[in-house]
This record gives sequence, C-alpha cells and structure tokens, in this order.
Amino acid sequence: MSDPLVIFTPSGKRGRVARGTSVLAAARQLGVDLDSVCGERGICSKCQVAPGYGSFSKHGVTVAADALSDWNSVEQRYDEKRGLAEGRRLGCQARIHGDVVIDVPPESQVHRQVVRKAASARQMVMDPATRLYFVEVAEPDMHEPSGDLERLAEALRHQWDVPKIEATLPVLRKLQPTLREGKWQVTVALHRDHTGQTPQLIDLWPGFREAPLYGVAIDLGSTTIAAHLTDLRTGEVMASTGIMNPQIRYGEDLMSRVSYVMMNPGGDLEMTRAVRMGLNSVIDAVAQDAQLDRRDIVEAVIVCNPVMHHLVLGIDPTELGQAPFALAVSDALGMEAQDLDLTALNPAARAYFLPCIAGHVGADAAAVALSESPETSDDLVLIVDVGTNAEILLGDKRRVLACSSPTGPAFEGAQISSGQRAAPGAIERVQIDPETKAPRFRVIGCDLWSDSPDFAQAVAATGITGICGSGIIEAVAEMRMAGLVDPSGLIGSPAQTGTARCEPAGRTHSYVLHDASATGGPKITVTQGDIRAIQLAKSALYAGARLLMDALGVNKVDRIVLAGAFGAHISPKHAMVLGMIPDARLDRVTSAGNAAGTGARLALCSIAARAGIEATVRRIHKVETAIEPRFQEHFVAANALPHASDPFPELSQIVTLPKVSFNTGGAEGDTGRRRRRRVS
Amino acid sequence: MSDPLVIFTPSGKRGRVARGTSVLAAARQLGVDLDSVCGERGICSKCQVAPGYGSFSKHGVTVAADALSDWNSVEQRYDEKRGLAEGRRLGCQARIHGDVVIDVPPESQVHRQVVRKAASARQMVMDPATRLYFVEVAEPDMHEPSGDLERLAEALRHQWDVPKIEATLPVLRKLQPTLREGKWQVTVALHRDHTGQTPQLIDLWPGFREAPLYGVAIDLGSTTIAAHLTDLRTGEVMASTGIMNPQIRYGEDLMSRVSYVMMNPGGDLEMTRAVRMGLNSVIDAVAQDAQLDRRDIVEAVIVCNPVMHHLVLGIDPTELGQAPFALAVSDALGMEAQDLDLTALNPAARAYFLPCIAGHVGADAAAVALSESPETSDDLVLIVDVGTNAEILLGDKRRVLACSSPTGPAFEGAQISSGQRAAPGAIERVQIDPETKAPRFRVIGCDLWSDSPDFAQAVAATGITGICGSGIIEAVAEMRMAGLVDPSGLIGSPAQTGTARCEPAGRTHSYVLHDASATGGPKITVTQGDIRAIQLAKSALYAGARLLMDALGVNKVDRIVLAGAFGAHISPKHAMVLGMIPDARLDRVTSAGNAAGTGARLALCSIAARAGIEATVRRIHKVETAIEPRFQEHFVAANALPHASDPFPELSQIVTLPKVSFNTGGAEGDTGRRRRRRVS
Repeated sequence: MSDPLVIFTPSGKRGRVARGTSVLAAARQLGVDLDSVCGERGICSKCQVAPGYGSFSKHGVTVAADALSDWNSVEQRYDEKRGLAEGRRLGCQARIHGDVVIDVPPESQVHRQVVRKAASARQMVMDPATRLYFVEVAEPDMHEPSGDLERLAEALRHQWDVPKIEATLPVLRKLQPTLREGKWQVTVALHRDHTGQTPQLIDLWPGFREAPLYGVAIDLGSTTIAAHLTDLRTGEVMASTGIMNPQIRYGEDLMSRVSYVMMNPGGDLEMTRAVRMGLNSVIDAVAQDAQLDRRDIVEAVIVCNPVMHHLVLGIDPTELGQAPFALAVSDALGMEAQDLDLTALNPAARAYFLPCIAGHVGADAAAVALSESPETSDDLVLIVDVGTNAEILLGDKRRVLACSSPTGPAFEGAQISSGQRAAPGAIERVQIDPETKAPRFRVIGCDLWSDSPDFAQAVAATGITGICGSGIIEAVAEMRMAGLVDPSGLIGSPAQTGTARCEPAGRTHSYVLHDASATGGPKITVTQGDIRAIQLAKSALYAGARLLMDALGVNKVDRIVLAGAFGAHISPKHAMVLGMIPDARLDRVTSAGNAAGTGARLALCSIAARAGIEATVRRIHKVETAIEPRFQEHFVAANALPHASDPFPELSQIVTLPKVSFNTGGAEGDTGRRRRRRVS
Repeated sequence: MSDPLVIFTPSGKRGRVARGTSVLAAARQLGVDLDSVCGERGICSKCQVAPGYGSFSKHGVTVAADALSDWNSVEQRYDEKRGLAEGRRLGCQARIHGDVVIDVPPESQVHRQVVRKAASARQMVMDPATRLYFVEVAEPDMHEPSGDLERLAEALRHQWDVPKIEATLPVLRKLQPTLREGKWQVTVALHRDHTGQTPQLIDLWPGFREAPLYGVAIDLGSTTIAAHLTDLRTGEVMASTGIMNPQIRYGEDLMSRVSYVMMNPGGDLEMTRAVRMGLNSVIDAVAQDAQLDRRDIVEAVIVCNPVMHHLVLGIDPTELGQAPFALAVSDALGMEAQDLDLTALNPAARAYFLPCIAGHVGADAAAVALSESPETSDDLVLIVDVGTNAEILLGDKRRVLACSSPTGPAFEGAQISSGQRAAPGAIERVQIDPETKAPRFRVIGCDLWSDSPDFAQAVAATGITGICGSGIIEAVAEMRMAGLVDPSGLIGSPAQTGTARCEPAGRTHSYVLHDASATGGPKITVTQGDIRAIQLAKSALYAGARLLMDALGVNKVDRIVLAGAFGAHISPKHAMVLGMIPDARLDRVTSAGNAAGTGARLALCSIAARAGIEATVRRIHKVETAIEPRFQEHFVAANALPHASDPFPELSQIVTLPKVSFNTGGAEGDTGRRRRRRVS
C-alpha cells in the first residue's frame, strides 16, 4: 500500500507522506504555511485545519472517513476548555492514515494575507519582526552546569530553528523567575528582523501566552503625532489617536525650529525631550484606548520628516537648515525604544525608522512610497503628500524620482488672515454661486451647508471661528470660477465683480465669506494677501511636480495619488482649478488617505516591507529643488490661476474619493479628522 | 628588468612587487604586519620602517642606495614637526625601486607581542577590540544625498575594509560637528570583537588623534574591587587601584548577601546599585591617577564570581544560593557599559564579562584559566585561587576540570579571634622558635621582624592591631612545627608544651603571639577556635583539590600554581605544612600573582584571548562539590595537620616566589598589598 496522498488547500500543495504523520508535520514537509506557536503540544490551536471527506473530483481523490486518526484526548481537552469549531482538527494531533484533502483556514496561516480595502487591492502579508514562541526549556543540571539563558537558547534552536539569541539585562533579570513559574515552559517574544542582527529576546511569560503582541505605527509630524496601535498577528488596528506635537511651542514650522536651535544652544535637546514626551503620551493614549498592558506593545515604527527624524533621535538638525542639507544618518535605523526614552511600551521594545530619502525628503516620504509602491506601477504616477512641505514622488517601474517643495503652511490655514487649524467651527467647504456671487459653506463639526435653515442652530455650539486649509483652497478656487479673481490672482472691485461682497481693503479688495460683526461675531474674509499666500504655496507644489516631470522628460502623468491631509480633505477638483497639481482626468486622481501612516503600519507588520522600502529608497533618484534654476522658472510660471471655469462641469457635487485602508479596523474613519493636521 | 624583491624582517616574508609600490602596500601584499592608523597620509608614523642597505648574504641580496625612493616632502614635514629617528622611513611614503631588506620594528607592528615577565614567559599579542582608524570622509552632495554616517561607513569600507558599522545615538549626535571640525578628516574608535557583531562606532575626534585609547580590567571581588587602567595599544598598565566593595554592608561573604536578598525583596537591586557605584568609583580613581580624560576609556572587562556577576548585571542571585545553583546566564557577555550604569568612562564604551564556568565557579576562575592556560600544559597542573571561596582547576592539554570549594573567609582573617583584614598593623608573617617556642613576627607596613631592636619604634605609627590571613596561616603552621599543636589540631597545655605562652583559655588553650595589655595595648593570641577555623577552611580547600584528582584518577600533581591572595601573600611552605594543598616539590610550586586580574587584562588586550577562553570554558569539565559524597569524605580526612616538622628544612628563609606580570608597568608592585584582599 503506497503512502497516503495529502492535498492542502487553498495552496494546492500536495505530496505523499508516511502513514501516521501528523497534519502539521505533513504541512512542514510539503512547505505549506500552517501556523503553530506551541510546537505540537495541542495548546495553541494555531494549527487548526478543516479536513474534507468524500470525493474530490477536482483533486482526483476520495477521502475515506478514517483518513485521519480519531479525535484524541488532547483535542478533546482543548475542545472542552476552549472550544473547537465543527469540522476542525488540531493539525499537530490529527495523523494521516489515508488520502486526504485538508483546508488551511486563513487564521491558521503564519503569513496570512491581509486585504487592503483599496482600489489597487494590494495585499499585505503579515510578517512582523516580533513573534511569540512557546518553548520547553531543559531544567538545570548541576553536573552539566549551564545558564538558564543558554538552555532557553538551546530550546529555541531545537524547537524553532532559531540559531542564536541575545537578551538585554532587564529581560535577563526576569528569566529565572519566569522559567520557574512556568515550570520550564515559557512563551518568548523574539525580535528577528531583516538586517541579520542576532534575534533579540524581548520578553517572556510563564506557560503558553494566548494574547497577541502589539506594535505602534507612529506618524510624527511637525504639528501632530498620530499613533496606530496594531495587532502584530492580524494587522488589525486596535486604536488610533493623534495629539499635538509638543514642539509646537518652539516654532510652528520646521525652519523656525531649526532657527530655534541656532539661536539657543542646546535647544535641540529641549525639543528632543519634548517630542519624546509626546511619543510617550500618544502611545499611552492608544494603549489606554485599547485597554492593553503597555508591556504588550513590543515594537514601534516611526515615520517623520528629516528635521523631526533628527530631533527625535537627539541629533542637532542645524545641517538640515542650510545647503547641502546633509543628514546625519539616512539609512533605516533599528534600536531599542528605550534609547529614545520611550517608556510607554515594553522596556525591551524595538523601534524602527524608515530611511530618509534626502535632506528634505524624509522617512515619511519613504512611508508614502512603501504604501503606494510607485516602483511597481505600470503607468506613470505622481504622488503628492502635502503638509508644511510637500513631498512629491514621480515614477513607474522603470524609475522613481523624489523631491520636496517648500509650500509653507498656507495649505494648513496658517498665514491666512482668517486662517485656523482644522477644528470644529472652521470653514472647510466653500461654494460660490457664479451668478449671485454668494457663498455657502460648511464648518467642521456640522453636516449642514450654511444656506440650510437649520444651520445657525446647528453651529451654535462651535460657532464659526475661521477658515482652515481645505476651506481657503476651495474659497480661492470658487472665487476664480465665479469670476471674482482674475488669472493673476487679483480680486476685482465691486464694480468689476458686480457684488458688494468684494469690498475695498486698503489698496486691494477682500471677499466677505461670512460676516457676524453686527452681532459681535467674526467677519471672515478672503483677502488679497490670502490669495497671494495660496498662490505661492501652490506654485511651489506645482513647480516641484514639474521639475520631476522635466527630469523624466514628460509633459503629463497617467495618474495622480493624493496623500496625507491633501488626499483626505482637499478637493481634487479645486486643487486642479488652482493649478496645484498638473491637470489629469479626475477619475485618474485617487486618494491614498494617510499614506505615510499606512506605510508605517506596513513596516510594522512586515520585515519584508522594511527590506523592500530600504532597497527602493536606495534606487529613488533625488532631485533637490533648492538649487535647481528650473524650479524658480516653474515657480514663477505657475503663479497664475489657470482655470476660469469649472474644469469638471459634469460633476455637480464635491467628489468624495474612496479612502484606502489596509485593514478591517474602523480607525481610518475615527481619526480622519484628527489626522488631517499631519504635517510632513 | 624583473620586479624588485622585498624581504621583510623579522618575519622573513619576501616577494616581488611592482616597481614604485610603497613599502606599506608591499607589506600588505605580502601579509606582513605593518601598522597604519592614518591610511597612507604620512600623519600617524605608525608605519615606520628601517630599510637596510648593502649586502645581505643571509638573504642573498645586495641593497643599492637608491633601492627606495628619496626622502619626500611628507617625510620631511613629519620629521620637522615630530621627528623621525635616524634610518627610519615612513612606509607609506617610501617607494620600492630595487631589491631591498626592510625591518619592521616592534612598535610598527599592529599585533605586537608583549612579553610577560614570567617563568613561563608566555607572550601576548595585542589584539584589542577597540582601535583607532583615521579616515577621510566624502563631503555631502545635494545631488547624491546620503547621511554623514553612511559616508563615514563608506570611507571605512574603502579605506579600512570595515564592511559595516553601527552607532549609538549619542555618537550620532556628535558625528556632524566632528566631521566639520575635522574638515572631513576624523579618527574613529571602532569596536570589532570576535562575536560577529557589527562593528560599533564608539567615538570620533576631528583630524588625526595621536593619543591612545584605554581600557580598564576590573577584578570585582566580594570584598574589594580592583581596576587596572591599560593602554590598548601597548598593553601597558597606566594605573591600578582597589577599593572596598560597597556591598560589604549587606554581608561579608557571598551567602550572607544572597540571604539578604531572600529576606529583603528588592535587596538585590540595592546591591546592584551599590556595586555599580563602586565600579564607577574605581574607574574614576584610575583615570585620575593616570590623569586621563574618562572619555578615552573605551572598554571594560569584568571578572568576578557568579554571585557578583549576577548582582552587577542586575540579576537576583537567589538561585545561586541553592541547588542546583543555576546561573541565569553562563556564556561570556558583551554590552554597552552604560547598560551597567557605568558613567565613569566613554558613554559608548563596551563592557565584556568572561564566561562563568558553573554556578560556583565564576568568570574570575575563567580569568585564572585564561592567565594560566592549563589546557595547554604538558604536565598536570593544579591551579588554586583562594578567597572566600577557592576556585580550583586541575588538568593538562588533554582535559581540564574545575570546582569551587567553600573555604569561608578564615584565610582572609575573618572568623579569627584576633583576625583583621590585611592592612597596616596586621601581623602577616610569623616564625616560632622550635626550641624556645618564642614567636617573632612582622606587620604590614614595616620591614623589620619583631625581635629587631628598632621594631617598636618602626611600628609606633601603625601599632600592632591584629592578625591577617597570611599571618594566621603561618602562625598555625609554625605552632604545629614547634610542637605546640598536635596532629588533630589541639593546642597543648603549658605543661605539655613547656611554654607559658600556651595559656589556659576556658577548657582549651591559646598561644600568645603578642601581649601589650599591660600598657593598654592589644593581646593577640591564636585560640583553639582559630585553629579549628583554619582546619575547616584548609580541609575544604584540600578536599576540593582531591576531588578533582579523583575525577582524573591521579594521586599527585606535577606542579601547583597559586593564584590570587594565596599566591601573592601566603607562604607555600606553610600552606603545605597545614595540608592546604597536596604535597609537591617546592620548586614546582609557582605563584601566578593576581591571575584573575591578569586574565582580565589579557581579555582586554586581545579578542583572540576572549574567543580562546570562551572555547576553553566550554570544554572544562565541572565538578560540583556540594553534592559529591566523596567531597565530605575528603573533607573529614583532611582535617588533621600532617607535618610535624618543616617539610623543607633546606629552606631557612621564607620563599619569595617570582611574581608574574604580563607587562612592563610597575603596577604589580604598587598594588600588591591592596590587591591581596581580592575575594573570588
């Protein structure tokens, strides 16, 4: 009688194994991805499989009822204690006695795929650096003395093929009591990354640990710090939150913080302390949200612009403020989270920084590249991430270029006369009737338009306090389309525009968006200065994109991906009316949501993703805008407002772009508003 | 014309090189050990060579006067600035134009040999983990942006074949200013050890750094902490000092400290803080002695017993206090010195612990093994290191065994009625006239014997305060040889011994060594209890040695090496009279001095030594005395005092053994007295 044939689905891998082989052993022999944390002890249930019986014409086998060994006492015990779903067997217990078809459900795969809810439907394979391993450790023997750590290492070598481990002193300190408490059975968290570093013992728990480990993906912006607490087994986001970057008090934008260092020796250390405190706060907040023990957070991935990168690492960023904009370190960095004074997670947790692309193009841009993979694109894609600086990527599978462009903070509502940060009460949407020149608008925190009869009551709580970045962009674009502003950006007089809303303001004019001054409320106007600020910002952004197009020798791009606040909140139509981005068909403009945050989460969940983006960044061609004469030419040329009318008249409504998220958690929706202020 | 022939002396390596090759390049091609720190820039002068001219019949060549290129401007400048000895050339500047014989002086060899002043004359090759490298780093280029660290790594790769480096954040912080201050020329300290770890960037200095780096070898005993500050280029000891271990207040011996932890939860952390403070103090003291910048100390090697090992690492030592005496970790350990809160040296300094052999046989015993190399011995050697515990090694090139024996602190003057630590005023040498039964003695701090007419005046400053370990051992042995004590250890009555110095004391008798009680001074006696304490201690020591001899199946050893306080201060003759050690010809008994400290210095100066002792320790066979019934048998049998008379009557004087030191510094003599209290 020949050896039984085993067919695993969905992989389709098949082969003959010796009669009596366990399903788990068969899976390993045939290279089938079947998980196991406890090492065949019937404890972890990670190796659950669903055997099929009967005739499988597709596979050409008929599976007899006795193809697998009977339900055994270990499975019985497991089922009584924790429950085993109908039709499921433990792969480490069930033994193969005849031809059989065995389905490996997704939750039993180590490298399970996580479908990203995305137009591109790119999938991610879970492959985190830190994983749990259950081991049985030999007890000490006076006659063959060896350390407990050495015997643990030996157990990992034999039971898990881990060649070597290292441990920090705090972990060593708990090794002996934990081994004894667990009666020489422990679950260890090991960090094994893609760099060839010796695997690090992060923590250990007595016996078999059921609960998963967590990591935190941190998007560290100049203005806000966002954190996404992620289950390292499933990739699911358990909690997300954002706080203001405590460095704000040293300067709103990056260059003012660099100046602060130049003016105040040691000022960088103050800022380092401040941002590290901020990181601890935000990690603490997500841990509390998810009601987790902070010790269960064993990894942090941090993405940020180069100045924040240096400041959080404790490196003086002065060199980044002047040509040649030299980074102290550009490659990806791995370290102990403690080296960054991060105390709000496991004391042995590891931190990982994505690589910086250049002195102006940081690890946040690398994270966007990781999320959007321009290097795998068949068509030419322009990816724009707007914050105080705009990071721009252009390329396809042949070549990817990157630059940053100093847009300044106007897109975020700063340097605007009635500007404010995106917060309840801020005008975020504007429409101007081309006939009457009358505006209507919406404010954050209220779903109604201002011409709704119930609007006044609905905004009573927050008031109407100012205009945020997306609001000023829409206002200027709508003014242009309503004929209130000429191609040079000049606001017309009441006589020229036919509306008293264009009122004189010194030697220029302002457009009145909202006026409650009669009742002691605010008067919100768009001034000539506001339009000039938006023109400067959008020219810089456009010039950066054009510079990359020049470098590739192209005049148009196939598609545009909007990332960050831009993608989430700024209307692509209005951006194109203003000439912020090159013209493209609106259906080829997609939003990547918080792509930097997504990139951070990808790096958190996959060491292959880390290796991939490190290789990609080395290949990205960097274009420095500051010294390129053509940047200035493009900048000047881009000053005008090109579109005198709606370029997409077929779209009567504001377009809502599909949002992209790579997991099934609801975090994106929860924090979209808070995250809009991310500054890259 | 064929390529010129180059012969290097003293290595004798020879070969032909292309005409115009520099001497340094030729040395590298031919595998000749010729140093260079500056990388052929004529700055460091480490590559100085002495070319020979004329006829060399031995080598069969005649060297023409123009065999090397003329003295060039770089050499001229160097000679003017710093002086170049007559006949010397810079190997990086002088180019080979004809057959030549070139001598490489010892100071120009990287792996120079350091002769140990020893009977065995074993030599040590300098091979420290941390060395200096001078590099020229490419300036940043906006068009090819890369981090300063990456360009430094690139320079090390190209100029020094260092494949990869890592840096801690504090070093990264100083990278940019140092590179700019040095105008892109810097000297870096790199730590490259034998473990395959990525080389670590420890520190860097602008331009070429002339001054050497230093390491500190620390012998961390239960009672004292000794440190030897060592030049990592020459191996020379610059300063040595010892302080009391601040843990003393938690218990005199190891087991009382383990008990302290058991009784006081968290007590181990108190002791960890105390000993780390002690380490900082002792490092600080040697740095001040040598008038060095503490930042120039870049390595620490620590040897200690297992309990101290765990306490300094911050690991609860409770498991070491009970069978099976399990170590938390036994292998050698490398870490940042900062992980041990060592702040008295460079912030990025590395620390290395030698491996522990077993739960009772620590890294100090490993250091003794490293110093004495029993695994290379042709004859059977017994190595004994006495402290509160005795570590015993027995073996030869075929097999090495190790055990520890709980001698207790009697050999150090503790638990002795008039006992005291070795300090000025303590009786350290005793002779008893076999006829008159009268003693004479010497005290620490005075070179005269007590029967000298000037003695009273000479000891006036210190007084005569008690009796230290070596004193009590000699006193008991002399009492035995003078017939005052019988083989069972009983002190005779005045009637039996014929001297009133054996005076009644309760139901037993005491021997009066010194009595100043009439003038209000101390009365120093050897009591029956003192003799019992010494008997217990020496029986334990002897039983341990016998147990190892049993395990090897031998009845005698070829030679004995006495290490630690034993070797330095206890007379081997008296030790044999007492039966502390097996009998051997006195000329086959040698002292290894502070062998543990020597082992620590070897490990500091050579990564090959580290790799060697790690391999040796893995092969050492450990014998656990605590559970071996034959230990108890030997212990009981060894209780008697075997020798009723001087076994070496031909030696009228106390034998002074040659001391062993592996360097030319005077540290051994300076600190011998202070170091005697090292407890292993």
